[in-house]
Amino acid sequence: MLLAYGGQEFEDVRVDKEQWPELKPKTPFGQLPLLEIDGKQYAQCIAICRYLGRKYGLAGTTLEEDLLIDQNMDFFNDIRMKAVAANYEPDEKVKAAKLEDLKKNHFPFLFSKLDEIIKENNGFLAAGRLTWADFMFAGVYDALKMFTHIPDLDEKYPSFSKLRDTVRSLPKVKEFCESAPKTDF
Amino acid sequence: MLLAYGGQEFEDVRVDKEQWPELKPKTPFGQLPLLEIDGKQYAQCIAICRYLGRKYGLAGTTLEEDLLIDQNMDFFNDIRMKAVAANYEPDEKVKAAKLEDLKKNHFPFLFSKLDEIIKENNGFLAAGRLTWADFMFAGVYDALKMFTHIPDLDEKYPSFSKLRDTVRSLPKVKEFCESAPKTDF
Repeated sequence: MLLAYGGQEFEDVRVDKEQWPELKPKTPFGQLPLLEIDGKQYAQCIAICRYLGRKYGLAGTTLEEDLLIDQNMDFFNDIRMKAVAANYEPDEKVKAAKLEDLKKNHFPFLFSKLDEIIKENNGFLAAGRLTWADFMFAGVYDALKMFTHIPDLDEKYPSFSKLRDTVRSLPKVKEFCESAPKTDF
Repeated sequence: MLLAYGGQEFEDVRVDKEQWPELKPKTPFGQLPLLEIDGKQYAQCIAICRYLGRKYGLAGTTLEEDLLIDQNMDFFNDIRMKAVAANYEPDEKVKAAKLEDLKKNHFPFLFSKLDEIIKENNGFLAAGRLTWADFMFAGVYDALKMFTHIPDLDEKYPSFSKLRDTVRSLPKVKEFCESAPKTDF
């Protein structure tokens, strides 16, 4: 979505489960996503989004504004990582207990804080306007929602799906999303 | 350590367990560490380190170099977060199983990759020279070592403790570390 926003010509390579074992050892850290520029590979999704954001005018205008974007991005990512970790629990009992603990003791505070942040920033994640952090949010929100197992998350916090839609409605991004291959989580 | 390196006058406030419940709701996300500048609070340790690093000439000189610093920092932080998550498991059996799985199936690849990165970068985490990412590494390495429960981690990968010591030996940092209050993990 950031590459499309930036008007950058690029190849959108999707990797399926069958291809992954062969590709994995050739990646920097055995992980996806990857950004390849002139044959050089870069890993780590937030680092990649920050880089593309700075390239396409979606970063802060001062060091302090960049700090606030990074701060709110990392707060959002903390929530995401909690949900991901619980979902990848191999033991079903442990997984259920962890999800229950998150729903009861952590998500209410974290999501209402996130909602507050988005409201304070005119519907964006930081800086009161569109930044690269919003692209990261829009890119992972649906997966996060699934991982929380809170089916009415959109209704509880309308600011979340609204932000996702704001990013996905940007003309070049919309065009990209409509033509991009659909892949399952 | 970054504030000391930058020659910035600052107050080093340590918070003990008794003070935390009162302070927690007054922080941006209910978390430490915090950086307070002229009454304004900033949270999220990596975001704070990146900000101070850019301020004190410890960032990249190009967008691509910043991307590599961020990439390697986030890779290191992934390792740290895996170790932290296992250690904070409330159930002792689950904790032991997780630590065993990390030691057997994840740490060997992750630590040898980290070792390779540091060797390729002249003993630093990225960019072949001192950056803010090395301060983050030096600040948390001893805690990470404890969390891995690998007592001979220093001996297995001498590049790790060497990098920590490189940062801690920088004159202004050394002076700060020697006079700083000692706190337990």
